[in-house]
Amino acid sequence: MSHSTMAELRRALDGRWAEVRDTVRTELATSEWATPTEPLPITDYRERTTGQLLRLMHLPWTKAGFSDEPGTPGDIGASLTMFEMLGHVDLSLFVKVGVQVGLFGGAVAGLGTQRHHDEYLEKIAAGELLGCFAMTEVGGGSDVANLETTATYDSDTDEIVVHTPSPSAVKDYIGNAAKDGTMAAVFAQLIVDGTSHGVHCVLVPVRAADGTAMPGVTIGDCGAKIGLPGVDNGELSFDQVRVPRDNLLDRFGQITAPDPAKGTSAYTSGIESDSRRFFSMLGTLVRGRVSVGGSAGAATRNALTLAIRYATRRDQFSRPDLGDGLGSGIRLLEYSTHRRRLLIPLARSYALALATNALVADVHDKQVGSGEADADETAVRRLEERAASLKVANTDHASRTIQACREACGGAGYMWENRFGALRSDVDVFTTFEGDNTVLLQLVAKGLLTQYKDAFESFDTRAMIGFAARNVFESAVERAFGGSIVQRLIAGAPGRDADNALEDRGGQLAIFEDREEHTVATLAARMRSRSSDEDADPAEVLSAVQPHMLAAAWAHIDRLLLEAFAEVAEGCEDEEARTLLCTVCDLFVYSTVEANAAWFLEHGRISAAQSKAVSARVD
Amino acid sequence: MSHSTMAELRRALDGRWAEVRDTVRTELATSEWATPTEPLPITDYRERTTGQLLRLMHLPWTKAGFSDEPGTPGDIGASLTMFEMLGHVDLSLFVKVGVQVGLFGGAVAGLGTQRHHDEYLEKIAAGELLGCFAMTEVGGGSDVANLETTATYDSDTDEIVVHTPSPSAVKDYIGNAAKDGTMAAVFAQLIVDGTSHGVHCVLVPVRAADGTAMPGVTIGDCGAKIGLPGVDNGELSFDQVRVPRDNLLDRFGQITAPDPAKGTSAYTSGIESDSRRFFSMLGTLVRGRVSVGGSAGAATRNALTLAIRYATRRDQFSRPDLGDGLGSGIRLLEYSTHRRRLLIPLARSYALALATNALVADVHDKQVGSGEADADETAVRRLEERAASLKVANTDHASRTIQACREACGGAGYMWENRFGALRSDVDVFTTFEGDNTVLLQLVAKGLLTQYKDAFESFDTRAMIGFAARNVFESAVERAFGGSIVQRLIAGAPGRDADNALEDRGGQLAIFEDREEHTVATLAARMRSRSSDEDADPAEVLSAVQPHMLAAAWAHIDRLLLEAFAEVAEGCEDEEARTLLCTVCDLFVYSTVEANAAWFLEHGRISAAQSKAVSARVD
Ligand SMILES: Cc1cc2nc3c(=O)[nH]c(=O)nc-3n(C[C@H](O)[C@H](O)[C@H](O)COP(=O)(O)OP(=O)(O)OC[C@H]3O[C@@H](n4cnc5c(N)ncnc54)[C@H](O)[C@@H]3O)c2cc1C
Ligand SMILES: Cc1cc2nc3c(=O)[nH]c(=O)nc-3n(C[C@H](O)[C@H](O)[C@H](O)COP(=O)(O)OP(=O)(O)OC[C@H]3O[C@@H](n4cnc5c(N)ncnc54)[C@H](O)[C@@H]3O)c2cc1C
Repeated sequence: MSHSTMAELRRALDGRWAEVRDTVRTELATSEWATPTEPLPITDYRERTTGQLLRLMHLPWTKAGFSDEPGTPGDIGASLTMFEMLGHVDLSLFVKVGVQVGLFGGAVAGLGTQRHHDEYLEKIAAGELLGCFAMTEVGGGSDVANLETTATYDSDTDEIVVHTPSPSAVKDYIGNAAKDGTMAAVFAQLIVDGTSHGVHCVLVPVRAADGTAMPGVTIGDCGAKIGLPGVDNGELSFDQVRVPRDNLLDRFGQITAPDPAKGTSAYTSGIESDSRRFFSMLGTLVRGRVSVGGSAGAATRNALTLAIRYATRRDQFSRPDLGDGLGSGIRLLEYSTHRRRLLIPLARSYALALATNALVADVHDKQVGSGEADADETAVRRLEERAASLKVANTDHASRTIQACREACGGAGYMWENRFGALRSDVDVFTTFEGDNTVLLQLVAKGLLTQYKDAFESFDTRAMIGFAARNVFESAVERAFGGSIVQRLIAGAPGRDADNALEDRGGQLAIFEDREEHTVATLAARMRSRSSDEDADPAEVLSAVQPHMLAAAWAHIDRLLLEAFAEVAEGCEDEEARTLLCTVCDLFVYSTVEANAAWFLEHGRISAAQSKAVSARVD
Repeated sequence: MSHSTMAELRRALDGRWAEVRDTVRTELATSEWATPTEPLPITDYRERTTGQLLRLMHLPWTKAGFSDEPGTPGDIGASLTMFEMLGHVDLSLFVKVGVQVGLFGGAVAGLGTQRHHDEYLEKIAAGELLGCFAMTEVGGGSDVANLETTATYDSDTDEIVVHTPSPSAVKDYIGNAAKDGTMAAVFAQLIVDGTSHGVHCVLVPVRAADGTAMPGVTIGDCGAKIGLPGVDNGELSFDQVRVPRDNLLDRFGQITAPDPAKGTSAYTSGIESDSRRFFSMLGTLVRGRVSVGGSAGAATRNALTLAIRYATRRDQFSRPDLGDGLGSGIRLLEYSTHRRRLLIPLARSYALALATNALVADVHDKQVGSGEADADETAVRRLEERAASLKVANTDHASRTIQACREACGGAGYMWENRFGALRSDVDVFTTFEGDNTVLLQLVAKGLLTQYKDAFESFDTRAMIGFAARNVFESAVERAFGGSIVQRLIAGAPGRDADNALEDRGGQLAIFEDREEHTVATLAARMRSRSSDEDADPAEVLSAVQPHMLAAAWAHIDRLLLEAFAEVAEGCEDEEARTLLCTVCDLFVYSTVEANAAWFLEHGRISAAQSKAVSARVD
């Protein structure tokens, strides 16, 4: 491969923030940073990760990436790319930095106002103030809107009282809580003058300088987990803990100073609906989801590199001796089963990496460009859905692929030093945190259903069912990651039923779009017919259509991936690089059609003969 | 559920050796035996597992199970059932006992003769002689017939010289080698008078009483692995290590005493072909494969029990408030996605458990009944293929299902104390050892192709391709696990094309048989057409049809599972128990058809409408 082809490939894959990638590649390449090749006891691992976090925050070059300079959005693309690259280094470190900078820092930056930025952001970025993001509760889990912790404003003292009313309201699994965090961004139902205004975030000091818990705060340690040994997850509960009113992160909802005359205070907010306000808050936290997906993708590429390298070097069995007594060894990668096990996931990894690059650029442009993240609600919603889509797609792929890589290396893959154990155990929880995948897929499906109804209320299940029931769904997919190249390809595509539709990139794009449109339309129709009965229990309607919601979300995800892949591959200027990327893109398409062959066959989208031909092409 | 129904269910699931199950359930139920709920450092875990092994071997009731009383085959069914039950206790212990009793003891019992039995078996069963089974080599892996270690007979001293000729011949991953084993059953190419006679097994002392390596033996430690921390895997290599001629386990091949007149010796064997002899040897080791599958199945059922219990107790989100302000919580198991994630694997676990019971009974009857394990070569081969089939099916299911269970428990599933981490990490390697799954599936497929040609040569790839090329495959599946009940059901089945075929148990059986027959026949046809070219490289032919071989093996596996399930479910005498088992069996059938819907549709076996109906039924 020529030098220019290599350069072009790298350019295509590295995307806009290639420089950040190179810096991380050079600066964090030593074993001092990498996941250790022997399991460490959890206390040692925690020590190590805390040390790495602090060192990282003091390196001059990380500033550009993590900058949350008061008042400026910072270089968000660089920051997200740096997070992704930490996935190549060590996932405990990624999560530790993610909690500190992305979640805790992100809450202060995104939910707080000027005074919070001035007071905290620099200390957070310097690692002088270590914090937690305390949202999840024992009883609540994914249902964050209904969490139980209360934050009650006491106008007499101008304080907020944070309280854990029951054992199920204990904050659980909180990163940075067991050992390091001195402050927590606590999500709680805000009550002012006896009225609840839904979930808000309050800063609560949880640990004194000497490491002991603050009065009224109880801290537990989650102890050993399946992976992420460097992250100190813990429990937090609050017994009437008082903090100043100023500790409310009040960008979306404020408590006005007590009126000295009347002795009362008031709650104000620019957003009237409690649930809509809460979803606006969650919207500012979208970057966490982007990085979780990105770093899972990076970890997966590490595993694939290891397994493919092994497969190109190891022989297993000999070519049957052809009579000359010289049967030679067969390289693992010569086995078609082995190629399937590794190269199909590799093709999808390419698609995911390119789509993630596109998403990062989108987030950067929207958040840096507009200044106000919530300028255009619909656009923000779309971005969140894409972030959710790629979070699910990346993390699901990661768990399955790292496992496949371990198996493809046989006994060697089972040895700890060969890294699959740590990779897989660490990445495992990525399907669960920052939004459980099954829950997120439903969020994506709801978004698809309500694509033309930009009201936040539609997050509500009943309203969404009602909407689906009233409207005959008219789909027109929005091309998220496809630019002018994808437009041109689709315009020039042969008809969907043309024999060669599957071989033409435009035809492939049309077929993937069609699958999404059809699946979403059917979902809407099912909801309509299920809910036509007045007495229908919405929970039952929802449960009945759930598998179809998941199917619609997956169809959407596959379409996003193909768009991003096609845009980059077909846009390559170097011919050799283009040919190579296009071949991988074809493999992605054929293996995706094969994996969903039942759907394409059931719906008469491909014939039996075409389906068999697709499998043959994958081989 | 009535008491008699419960009893009948338990009887149906526990199978013939229910008593052994009960004993293990009672005797090993304490935390002293169970996998610890905190990760232990590897040295402590090894200590613990060695202690458990020795204690187990001294418990009076284990005798029945592990008995390898010299000269008698022992109660093989009880032994296999006990092994399976250890999968409920701790997988490190299972493997440790498996290496000691099943592999090392099994080699002495199955490959040795009277003098070996007399000298060693009692000591092995008492844990006085701890041993290793040293087959795998660094360079060889799955290709055991071509391993490189040599055992050269020296007639001058009447000794066998065991030697590791190159770094790739080092024995690797050997259980019991790093810490405990004092003797190893070493597999090596036997050379007598300058001629190699293929792989044989020789007993070699590897460690002195004080724990140091014997002269000429080098022992390495594999160190930390992904799981199985209680098992001390290590490397063994030999530098011209001499052992007496008597140490050859010589049931299948003997070296006659040196002729004092001529000063020469001779090699004799009842089986002429080296490869056929080796496969006969492997045949006696079939029980290892049965127990690996069985214990993986047991571990999976543990995980499912945990996850289903969680799903019946945890609420997530509330039923949309119907205006009465009282929206109630939704139980996880009310979500259809959640039911799919857990109940489909549960149905397959039932099928696997029942098929494993049937396999254990078969092995018992064949090996105890005939006395000579290799009485009927074809029957032995069929048994091996079934053992391989269920080893693959059980272990593949285990890895995927335990992971699904972890995810279904969200954050709680990620906490070490909740056991999914240990279960999954331990069971992970079960897809690799005792025969790598991808390699075994090909063995099964070869067996299917040569079902009517009972020659051992057909294990050879080229011969097998030749065979497929010559013969138009006439399939007539052999009903492995189906008895009179299955016969009757199939006889009474509606035609394959009947609308209700899928709802009728006999029809289901016929459909599963048809899938197997068709897949195998197509595989044979493909091989024929690929190899019609004289110059075809057999390795390429093989690689080209590999995915089809795997498909054929899976079709066979699904058919075996359904037979076993149908036989037990339909044979239940208690009506309530029968109805329950039949419902689970239906779920197994529908979900299997759904998972393979592309095949059924491509081959016109079901219509698009039927396929959709199947999915609806699974929901
Ligand atoms: C290592 C780790 C670190 C974490 N760090 C933090 C942190 O720093 N801060 C923080 O606030 N939280 C943190 N969390 C919590 C994490 O975000 C939650 O675990 C996650 O949101 C899932 O909640 P849950 O565990 O209660 O699972 P649940 O929500 O109870 O879900 C359990 C299962 O039910 C399924 N399920 C739930 N709802 C539905 C539905 N509607 N339909 C279908 N299926 C459903 C899910 O798919 C899942 O399989 C962390 C968790 C872990 C494990
Ligand atoms: C924890 C542990 C304990 C063990 N205990 C013992 C023991 O006590 N005694 C002992 O002798 N051995 C033991 N083993 C070795 C074990 O049996 C081998 O690891 C296993 O046979 C696989 O060999 P391998 O690791 O060399 O993998 P390989 O055979 O090199 O396989 C690597 C990959 O290539 C694939 N592959 C190989 N051949 C083909 C083919 N023809 N077609 C398609 N794909 C192919 C496989 O599917 C696998 O994914 C143990 C291993 C482990 C990890």
